[in-house]
Amino acid sequence: MTLVLALDFGGTKLSAAATRFPPSPPHWLARRRVYTPDSADGLHEYTTMLAMAGELVAEVGTPDVIGVSFGGPVDVSQGLVRLSHHVAGWEQVPLADWLEDAFDVPVVVDNDANAAALGEHRFGAGRGLDDLFYVTVSTGVGGGWVLNGQPYRGRGRMAGEIGHVVVNPGGMACVCGKQGCVEAEACGPAIARRMQMLLGSFPEWGRPFIEWLERHGNSQSSMKITAKEVNAAAHDNIFLARQVLTEAGSFLGQGLGAVCNLINPQRIILGGGVTKSGPLWWEAVRNTARTHALPEVDVEIVPAELGDDAPLWGAAALAVERLRD
Amino acid sequence: MTLVLALDFGGTKLSAAATRFPPSPPHWLARRRVYTPDSADGLHEYTTMLAMAGELVAEVGTPDVIGVSFGGPVDVSQGLVRLSHHVAGWEQVPLADWLEDAFDVPVVVDNDANAAALGEHRFGAGRGLDDLFYVTVSTGVGGGWVLNGQPYRGRGRMAGEIGHVVVNPGGMACVCGKQGCVEAEACGPAIARRMQMLLGSFPEWGRPFIEWLERHGNSQSSMKITAKEVNAAAHDNIFLARQVLTEAGSFLGQGLGAVCNLINPQRIILGGGVTKSGPLWWEAVRNTARTHALPEVDVEIVPAELGDDAPLWGAAALAVERLRD
Repeated sequence: MTLVLALDFGGTKLSAAATRFPPSPPHWLARRRVYTPDSADGLHEYTTMLAMAGELVAEVGTPDVIGVSFGGPVDVSQGLVRLSHHVAGWEQVPLADWLEDAFDVPVVVDNDANAAALGEHRFGAGRGLDDLFYVTVSTGVGGGWVLNGQPYRGRGRMAGEIGHVVVNPGGMACVCGKQGCVEAEACGPAIARRMQMLLGSFPEWGRPFIEWLERHGNSQSSMKITAKEVNAAAHDNIFLARQVLTEAGSFLGQGLGAVCNLINPQRIILGGGVTKSGPLWWEAVRNTARTHALPEVDVEIVPAELGDDAPLWGAAALAVERLRD
Repeated sequence: MTLVLALDFGGTKLSAAATRFPPSPPHWLARRRVYTPDSADGLHEYTTMLAMAGELVAEVGTPDVIGVSFGGPVDVSQGLVRLSHHVAGWEQVPLADWLEDAFDVPVVVDNDANAAALGEHRFGAGRGLDDLFYVTVSTGVGGGWVLNGQPYRGRGRMAGEIGHVVVNPGGMACVCGKQGCVEAEACGPAIARRMQMLLGSFPEWGRPFIEWLERHGNSQSSMKITAKEVNAAAHDNIFLARQVLTEAGSFLGQGLGAVCNLINPQRIILGGGVTKSGPLWWEAVRNTARTHALPEVDVEIVPAELGDDAPLWGAAALAVERLRD
């Protein structure tokens, strides 16, 4: 039995958990989670994680190996964090080296989408499949591959970046500098942004949503809308909210249709906060993917089973499998 | 030494060739090629190919194995041709069975883009690489993968269909029923079609091209333009032709940029008639792919080395490797 520590540096929270491999059924011996303040930088996150990991070690003992999932581009071969798009101070950080120094055990680092893909493959909605694509739809949109049963990362370890496939040329501005990328059109903040734009352009059409907001304690004057609110309003049948949610889902579906034509994976698994939107969003995603894929191409799009734990399980699996090699 | 017969059912021509494996340096012992009339159907093509193959057998002896490349969707596991988009009478044809009955040796059938990808990997511009994507840009646009050194076909053997990735929503009508697919915007006929549309919409802008056509023996009244003519006129600095060629190249580049973000292959190899367009087209393809890929994603786009023989070499390699398994 291998004792594994799994760490996940997410966009808004830090998680740490311990398990023994092979975990059957999969369960954590112990776990910790903290939400990071908006002001958090890389140093703050690292020291917070170090403290949590130290607590877990005190509780379950020294691990044989540590697996890390990081929410940003990672050089897996060196365990190097290239940068975070959400948190400052993560430029070119040799995270594996730091953690190896701290705990004196082997450390493997991968990005969160790759880790989640592997987690879902080993323990979740992708068990037993040859090929799958995992997509996280959250503050950003990222993806990870399992092909022929193994993580597939591509030449420069950049494969899976569906968030930056253009689906709406001339559309919303993306952090990457292009317009109309899947991320710019379909991530959580994009849903809020689209609603805000429509409210500005069509105040009359927007009135029912504004009234809904007021009824739910968000005063019109603040106008700080969230994707969660758009989703809840859509659920309450507010037309404009349904429209916005459907559009966002369709743009994601268009990207997934391209994925199906290009790689024809056995299954596509969707995780992340936005996937907790209701059937309206799922229907838009699936229908659009279906119409964008060739008729001969199978399209199977399912929710993640491991939820927010997918990257942790993937990081753990990666660490154990690396130890074996 | 293994004697191999390679057969290629292309959109407009049939090729057959014989070689010995391992072929070093790669060369054909004998070969045949015929262009098929527009009126050709599946039966005509099959009997013509059978005759050519028979001639080769008479010349070099009975092969140990036959490899077949077919220009349309193929079920590799059964050696079944699903259909041809270009030639009638190819619906659900058990081509491997027929050829096995005719020659009494094992037969392997794959589609032409997959075969060409493998051909370029084993003997052409992809030698020694782990991962490549091959795209043929001709009367249609198709693609094939080599991942981890082996053909990758996807769950339903449909992977590689870049021709039906949408890059211009609301754009040109595609044979698949969608609008703005890579094929509809970037294949040879699409180049001719776009020119024809522009001539209709902007007759004044089109005048230099019409005059160029007349100088080159295509009378304005016939107005049957080819991609080859657009390319030649672009080479002669005719503005509208340059514009059309650049747009077509850009739409292909947009699709390739998506491929780079999603799979990050080591190299993309382009073959087919349209790739014989000059540097203007290549520049448009490469620049657009570059701007559509994330800055961290390598983009290497090179011409095929084996030209029209890529599917033949791939079919031969596939057959020999299947024989070994």
